[in-house]
Amino acid sequence: MSKIETLHDLLIQELKDLYSAETQLVKALPKMAKAATDERLKEAFQKHLAQTQEQVSRLEQIAKSLEFSPKGKKCVAMEGLIEEGKETISEDAADSVKDAALILAAQKIEHYEIAGYGTLREFADLLGYDEVRSLLEATLEEEHATDEELTEIASSINIEAEQGVDE
Amino acid sequence: MSKIETLHDLLIQELKDLYSAETQLVKALPKMAKAATDERLKEAFQKHLAQTQEQVSRLEQIAKSLEFSPKGKKCVAMEGLIEEGKETISEDAADSVKDAALILAAQKIEHYEIAGYGTLREFADLLGYDEVRSLLEATLEEEHATDEELTEIASSINIEAEQGVDE
Repeated sequence: MSKIETLHDLLIQELKDLYSAETQLVKALPKMAKAATDERLKEAFQKHLAQTQEQVSRLEQIAKSLEFSPKGKKCVAMEGLIEEGKETISEDAADSVKDAALILAAQKIEHYEIAGYGTLREFADLLGYDEVRSLLEATLEEEHATDEELTEIASSINIEAEQGVDE
Repeated sequence: MSKIETLHDLLIQELKDLYSAETQLVKALPKMAKAATDERLKEAFQKHLAQTQEQVSRLEQIAKSLEFSPKGKKCVAMEGLIEEGKETISEDAADSVKDAALILAAQKIEHYEIAGYGTLREFADLLGYDEVRSLLEATLEEEHATDEELTEIASSINIEAEQGVDE
């Protein structure tokens, strides 16, 4: 792995990390959508899959503009986050409990991305990379919106889960 | 691993996950404090270590109250997050760049915990576990405050990192 000496180097390393994170998520989201039983949740995951594909494209556009290859780094944190999302939920669990677990896993993933994109937007700003900054900002806004939408969906699903209601 | 059937089960599983996360963090924070060069950052990590030890105690108190053992689950997501924090920073890097990388790693960790505690507080609320709710709320507030403090410290460190200033 190349060494980090400057803020530019750190930005590049972290962009590669997010590229790995997003491409892992593109593979995980269809499984999460399939596992979800609540229709709104299923739709939210499908919508976020389309957004995530667009976010991968934005990172490719940034890589082209800053002249580096986004590939070749594995985001081990996202690997861990997705691994957790797969953890055993009993087939006897109420659908709403499964959905609540999926939302929790998804929100941890969103928060990881929000922390990453938020910081990299500041780095790009300081480095005067205006186009990169705008692209990171666009993705950051989508991640915030997804997190809020999941909180909104969770508010009714958690009540069903507490009451043991099978949807 | 025991199967998850109810919201109570999901709460217990996730409390174990956070217990593993916090105990891993208790080991990682002294290394992060040692690696930091900015004095405010060093102090922030030391302060957060003391808080994290208190947060571990709160989780033990919750475990006692809900009658389960908090041990025995490994939080693979936190493992990945800490692993990332260790990634290679060149010895030639300006101190401010190293500090910027440490802050980024720490904020990803904070966001993981914020997502976890935020959701579990809602679960505890729905389940009528008032004491558990209060304990989770206290930790959640500390995590938010730490995240804000890191953002504040980052605002000056990132400028130094961009200018290649060695503190």
